[in-house]
Amino acid sequence: MLRIILSGFGVVGQSFAKLLLSRSEDLYAKHGLKPRIVGVFDSKGSAASSAGLDLNRLLEVKKKYGDIRKYHNKERNANGLEMIKGMEAEVLIETTPSNYKDAEPGMSHIVTAMRNGLHVITVNKGPLALAFPSLIELATYNQVQLKFGGTVGGGTPILDYAKNSLRGERILSFQGILNGTTNYILTNMSTGLTFKEALSDAKKKGYVETDESLDIDGLDAAAKLVILANWIMDMKVTLKDVKIIGIRDVTTSDIKKAKSHDSAVKLIASCNKELEVAPKEILLDDPLCVNGTLNAITFNSEHSGQQTIIGKGAGGMETASSILRDLLDIKQEMFRIEIT
Amino acid sequence: MLRIILSGFGVVGQSFAKLLLSRSEDLYAKHGLKPRIVGVFDSKGSAASSAGLDLNRLLEVKKKYGDIRKYHNKERNANGLEMIKGMEAEVLIETTPSNYKDAEPGMSHIVTAMRNGLHVITVNKGPLALAFPSLIELATYNQVQLKFGGTVGGGTPILDYAKNSLRGERILSFQGILNGTTNYILTNMSTGLTFKEALSDAKKKGYVETDESLDIDGLDAAAKLVILANWIMDMKVTLKDVKIIGIRDVTTSDIKKAKSHDSAVKLIASCNKELEVAPKEILLDDPLCVNGTLNAITFNSEHSGQQTIIGKGAGGMETASSILRDLLDIKQEMFRIEIT
Repeated sequence: MLRIILSGFGVVGQSFAKLLLSRSEDLYAKHGLKPRIVGVFDSKGSAASSAGLDLNRLLEVKKKYGDIRKYHNKERNANGLEMIKGMEAEVLIETTPSNYKDAEPGMSHIVTAMRNGLHVITVNKGPLALAFPSLIELATYNQVQLKFGGTVGGGTPILDYAKNSLRGERILSFQGILNGTTNYILTNMSTGLTFKEALSDAKKKGYVETDESLDIDGLDAAAKLVILANWIMDMKVTLKDVKIIGIRDVTTSDIKKAKSHDSAVKLIASCNKELEVAPKEILLDDPLCVNGTLNAITFNSEHSGQQTIIGKGAGGMETASSILRDLLDIKQEMFRIEIT
Repeated sequence: MLRIILSGFGVVGQSFAKLLLSRSEDLYAKHGLKPRIVGVFDSKGSAASSAGLDLNRLLEVKKKYGDIRKYHNKERNANGLEMIKGMEAEVLIETTPSNYKDAEPGMSHIVTAMRNGLHVITVNKGPLALAFPSLIELATYNQVQLKFGGTVGGGTPILDYAKNSLRGERILSFQGILNGTTNYILTNMSTGLTFKEALSDAKKKGYVETDESLDIDGLDAAAKLVILANWIMDMKVTLKDVKIIGIRDVTTSDIKKAKSHDSAVKLIASCNKELEVAPKEILLDDPLCVNGTLNAITFNSEHSGQQTIIGKGAGGMETASSILRDLLDIKQEMFRIEIT
């Protein structure tokens, strides 16, 4: 049995609960995995049961009242940090929103969990963007695993592909479209909309973060770039090492100019010794040149040439599926002894 | 030390020897891998040394005389099967050309190697296309590993991505452009060439197999489809289970018709319960719609949506890099004890 504390119960948290419900038999039969969410907390409060919460009931309560505290008949006041310190569990799953100023409250959740011997899965990019190298050190020091497969590419396992599927190969550089919102806006601008019109359309569709700057000014793409650079290229970098230009100043005439030489303007995050996020012209014929909310990344490898992966970069169920992969890894590592 | 017998010393075999030379220090430092090619054979004869062949010299001899027998001062007459049975080695690497009639001589090499306790890496698709299920059984029975990462996608680790990076996810179906030669021909036809002109151009560029039918009539794509279906979808199928239509009858008017609804004609290998290779219209905007000799495959997964991988599907060094990945896996498995 694997006991989980879930931090945040928004779209991703709820999708993960649904995924566990729909996959429970299969997970046990195929992977010997029997996960139990023993505690869940958000900014309002928490719900807990050392035998495992009834996920159907938890989802129902959240839907009906918008408040997970109603799971219990009396209000529970345990906050996140108390729960992480006090409850018996093996894994913390951190899904609160990314914040690139101080990365709180996620940073405290993750650090406290690791200090208390919990493995951590985070889809919150903030703590990794601001402190990747130190967090990895802290995980090593405390002999716990820190997983973050869902932070880049949503359900598309970009990090895993580069690290594992390309093992034994040297990745020399890479460049990608890592933010679906800006890609949606730029795609719409190529059909004639102005930046303002395209932004307003993206907002209507619910594609833009509450703080629009995270998307538009390139912070989200830069955070993903930092994670990729640390994990794949063994660089020790944080957000301040990235040169960032967003798409706010891209004009319809820039887009027309690109079109005139069979190209499109895309917000490209690139790692080629230097780390950079900036609007660039990409040939329409380049596999990287994807439209709509799609994400794409091209790895330039020493012996296997250029390889591109394309997929949805976000979505609740997609991100939940990456959390599940991380959980399977943690389980497998916990029971493996390797002799070399 | 890992002792290797290399079957075939054409483009792929020579690239693999070069790769080992250029990576030897790094392979030992990073992966503890010290591979030695102790024997190599082709249709003419063989060269062998139980301490490991001098790969620089072997490459030189091949270049100068086109005959590896000249490595030794006297002619060696050991044929492949004798070498596999008689030499002390851990791994056979099979790189002779694919043949979809009886899969020989590769089939005998692989079967003999496994019966003699050797792990096998094959980039020869013939034996897998005709007998995947039985070969896997034979490997299990003899407690050896059978690896074939280079058979699909060349250096692009498509099989590994689907099997490992997507672990814990269900792949519902997939479709791909798995043959670079036909893709090159169809791409050129879209610029106005007839099939005959485009085929003749592809031949000049050296993209077409000696037996052109393997590419043009869809056999190569179908063989890769069989391998994917067995490995990823747990189907037990062989080449005769695939409905195959090649590109011989694609006309310029088919291509024009496709263009008129923003599509292109591509040779698509698809697995959606049924296995099929046939020319189909694909939207230009679809990530799968790649040009030139590129390969691409889209996996439709249950929770992470559509994911597309694009890369070069062939090339000596690219395929050699996939052999190296398989070798790293074999080494790792040999020294792993798993406790569950």
